[in-house]
Amino acid sequence: MDSTQIGFEVVVDQSYEQTLESITAALKAEGFGVLTRIDVRATMKEKLGVDFRPYAILGACNPTLAHRALSADPLTGLLLPCNITVESTSDQHTIVRIADPLAMLSVGSLGENETLRQISSEAQTKLKRVAQSLAHPG
Amino acid sequence: MDSTQIGFEVVVDQSYEQTLESITAALKAEGFGVLTRIDVRATMKEKLGVDFRPYAILGACNPTLAHRALSADPLTGLLLPCNITVESTSDQHTIVRIADPLAMLSVGSLGENETLRQISSEAQTKLKRVAQSLAHPG
Repeated sequence: MDSTQIGFEVVVDQSYEQTLESITAALKAEGFGVLTRIDVRATMKEKLGVDFRPYAILGACNPTLAHRALSADPLTGLLLPCNITVESTSDQHTIVRIADPLAMLSVGSLGENETLRQISSEAQTKLKRVAQSLAHPG
Repeated sequence: MDSTQIGFEVVVDQSYEQTLESITAALKAEGFGVLTRIDVRATMKEKLGVDFRPYAILGACNPTLAHRALSADPLTGLLLPCNITVESTSDQHTIVRIADPLAMLSVGSLGENETLRQISSEAQTKLKRVAQSLAHPG
């Protein structure tokens, strides 16, 4: 697992479709449901007629953490759900990127809210475990 | 229209349901489709059994701008789609918040990419017009 300034990145030795299943299961184990899923390749083909590699943007949500965050400040909805991208680089290699909730909180002044920082830190811990479980399966 | 550090905020003199229709139409006029829609109230009720006010998180995407952004740096997917929240405050007042694409680019080092800054600036101009059209309908 590598950290970028915006999130965590893992190269998974699985196909794109297998990785979509793995990440969904790993998120579920940490209490996150996948609420949204954008098939970027299909959208680009449909809307622009262009070819794009297999790439998905998943929106993951831990309902308990989201409820606490939205109750602390309804502006937080602009940063929800937690984004995860899944990008195929070859038949057996897929890159998973997970947005770091604490990094996202650096937008605007939301990060000055101590309650939101605490909630984001809890989300970060869970999502780091998700990334680690993908990097070291089984 | 007010600017917060994270986006644009408009109080609309319409019901929640009417506002969802208005914002979708205003986005369409600027080339943005609503790709995802999270009904926060329904999700909170279903997952946690708690009551929450009517609140939706929409994911809007301008396919041309998104294609350029993802082609410039696939990390950008962690910031897509553009988030918009719709929150009911009373029967005839609804708050719409639109994430500012340039503010979002301040997460991590993506903002150092001049191409991404240009694309985000174009998206910002379009989304400002969306906010203004809601503030001054007709």
